[in-house]
Amino acid sequence: MRVVELIRRKRDSQELSSEEIGTLVAGYTRGEIPDYQMSAFLMAALLRGLNGAETAALTEAMLHSGQVLDFSDMPGRKVDKHSTGGVGDKTSIVIAPIAAAGGLRVPMISGRGLGHTGGTLDKLESIPGFNVNLSLAEFRRVLEECGCALIGQTAEIAPADKKLYALRDVTGTVEHASLICASIMSKKMAEGIDALVLDVKTGSGAFMKKKEDAAFLAELMVDTGRRMGKQVVALLTNMDQPLGRTAGNAMEIAECIEVLNGGGPEDLRELCLVLAAWMFVLGGSAKSVEEGKKIAAGLIASGKAKEKFREIVRLQGGDVGVVDDPRRLPQAADRIEIPSPSDGYITGTQCEQLGIACVVLGGGREKKEDSVDPGVGLEFHKRIGAAVRRGEPLCTIHYNSDARLEEARRLVETAYGIGARPPATLPPLVSRVIGA
Amino acid sequence: MRVVELIRRKRDSQELSSEEIGTLVAGYTRGEIPDYQMSAFLMAALLRGLNGAETAALTEAMLHSGQVLDFSDMPGRKVDKHSTGGVGDKTSIVIAPIAAAGGLRVPMISGRGLGHTGGTLDKLESIPGFNVNLSLAEFRRVLEECGCALIGQTAEIAPADKKLYALRDVTGTVEHASLICASIMSKKMAEGIDALVLDVKTGSGAFMKKKEDAAFLAELMVDTGRRMGKQVVALLTNMDQPLGRTAGNAMEIAECIEVLNGGGPEDLRELCLVLAAWMFVLGGSAKSVEEGKKIAAGLIASGKAKEKFREIVRLQGGDVGVVDDPRRLPQAADRIEIPSPSDGYITGTQCEQLGIACVVLGGGREKKEDSVDPGVGLEFHKRIGAAVRRGEPLCTIHYNSDARLEEARRLVETAYGIGARPPATLPPLVSRVIGA
Repeated sequence: MRVVELIRRKRDSQELSSEEIGTLVAGYTRGEIPDYQMSAFLMAALLRGLNGAETAALTEAMLHSGQVLDFSDMPGRKVDKHSTGGVGDKTSIVIAPIAAAGGLRVPMISGRGLGHTGGTLDKLESIPGFNVNLSLAEFRRVLEECGCALIGQTAEIAPADKKLYALRDVTGTVEHASLICASIMSKKMAEGIDALVLDVKTGSGAFMKKKEDAAFLAELMVDTGRRMGKQVVALLTNMDQPLGRTAGNAMEIAECIEVLNGGGPEDLRELCLVLAAWMFVLGGSAKSVEEGKKIAAGLIASGKAKEKFREIVRLQGGDVGVVDDPRRLPQAADRIEIPSPSDGYITGTQCEQLGIACVVLGGGREKKEDSVDPGVGLEFHKRIGAAVRRGEPLCTIHYNSDARLEEARRLVETAYGIGARPPATLPPLVSRVIGA
Repeated sequence: MRVVELIRRKRDSQELSSEEIGTLVAGYTRGEIPDYQMSAFLMAALLRGLNGAETAALTEAMLHSGQVLDFSDMPGRKVDKHSTGGVGDKTSIVIAPIAAAGGLRVPMISGRGLGHTGGTLDKLESIPGFNVNLSLAEFRRVLEECGCALIGQTAEIAPADKKLYALRDVTGTVEHASLICASIMSKKMAEGIDALVLDVKTGSGAFMKKKEDAAFLAELMVDTGRRMGKQVVALLTNMDQPLGRTAGNAMEIAECIEVLNGGGPEDLRELCLVLAAWMFVLGGSAKSVEEGKKIAAGLIASGKAKEKFREIVRLQGGDVGVVDDPRRLPQAADRIEIPSPSDGYITGTQCEQLGIACVVLGGGREKKEDSVDPGVGLEFHKRIGAAVRRGEPLCTIHYNSDARLEEARRLVETAYGIGARPPATLPPLVSRVIGA
């Protein structure tokens, strides 16, 4: 099989077989197919499209480029949740302990902040001592002991994705549903799970700004997961404004603990309950989402979810004192309030811009090598639709550097839309469930 | 300027500026932009298209990646002819001496056989001693002395094209009008010419099988040449069957000498006269194609064209004895006739297949490193529309190797369409003149 023929056929909108896609991915991972052929193929795939079978074949090939975990010897259904990323999106840290407390096993391999979005690993690392770099053997041990472990991608998991992602990043081939789907699903399928709940974000703070793009990706991921024999459901959720009240690593951990304590902001709590509920449904512990939500709420109310979180923190080397006293988390040295420039109502936010402000403060990485400042971030006081008076704070910036503050402040100041009237309708938190 | 942004913009169908395209080509030629980014850009350009301004900018950037020759100190208009390639297409070897004998200067940089088509350089090298690898200084000296020189591409001419072509070849990005146009025109514009006649082939033996594709490429090349301040005319010519009576390097040289002697097959002679006529028109020596044809025919009849050919052969180190006695050319050891399987009329030929048969015999290269066998080739006895009786020879194969013969024979035997009636219409040799 000549690689150039495969490129030409995709260029001419022809369908490639699973074997052909498998050969491409395996050859590329082994270094036998050069970057320049793979990037031409990726661009052809992006512009001509890959159908469902091709997307599944790509996912499968990327999955089998590395180790596929197998926890079938452990009792309990293995269920994970994955989000496509947003601002203030911290649900994993709440629902992983809820699901594990409810009897599921949650082998969660998460990511770092990407672009304007935060990452579960960066958030967890704001807990002093918390180690996300477990070996696969340690991962298995923690999962076995407490039903949940949260780690970062290891070299053994889907190495093709790592290599392909680095190439896509520099060749303009990131933004495509099939390629995104294969990247996400190859890693998730390697976790040895039975079922997966996908939280696909859409809106001004999501990678997919348009709802139809997000829905397309969600359908493709559900379809791909099922072709690979897994139960998959995707929720289309709103990201036109940050989720919850904070964006920033340690601040978000504190907010998660609030939710595990039975409090926390309404939107964050609600989304955590819905996502955990779907995990229970797919895991066979609940017959309906309503029943699942009740189970989840019960696990919070009984303190079992928080207890599970404490166990995870302990097993992964973190300071368990944080769980009862979040003030032990790193905090920024200074804070400043950003006042509303006028009376009115919040009509919308440039949510991505708020995410960038958080990165600028040091809460994320502008370059891969940057280290993250765990204490900085944004505290949001007004949600879309809220009435606001001139001078009343919209947001509090927690910062460590005056130089960084200036740029972040400009971004935050221009991120809020304020009008004479509230918007006629507020976007629902969950607009669609795909694959239910 | 970030390269990935340029790739993304072309991917999203946006127009790039001349400066942006210039930066890409210059950076790639210098090795600062890696192959994997350029191949992604080329695939995006192929699938999204480049408009006239972008194509001209690409051509200009490739042209200026190397040396641009300047013969403005020499008297006479510098005019060249370029063909997009076909089977038995040998006109350059006839018309270069005609044009030079008529007072034009012809600084012709030609190519080798590509795919199923023959190449002027391979044909010339079948003349014992003929050197196509002149330095640019020698090229200038021969051009000055006799008004014409025929050489291969040198490292100084459009190095970007050489590098880009090698990349396109292995990334499925060869077949695109703008990229083909920039490749051809950047090299032609480097010749220091005032005007160019393009012979754009279409039909079963051309790279562009469809007339509309050939016309599109022709228009683009005419437009590009004019944007760069040159006079350019393109003739759309038929390649549904081989041009003339032979395909094979030495055999074609012998056929060219026939034409220069006032004989030769009608189609070859006619196309040579028309192309030379257009060179005279663009060079200011003739007011019309008819007048140009008369001049060309006169130069053949007077023996001046043949005399010029002898001079070129001598100045480029070839055996001038060949000009008077073509039997001095290399000849194949064996020949075999391919008989018609039935009575009827030739309805068409798989012309590319005939070209491949010639390559298989050793007349062209299957791999870049292959050497060419100058004596082998095909001799065609029947043209489309001709009546044929069962057993009458369609073609004679001149060969040196029995093993190679077998494959070539199969290709030739299945290349002829024979029907009960001749085709209703015969394709005209020249179907359109673009840019006149």
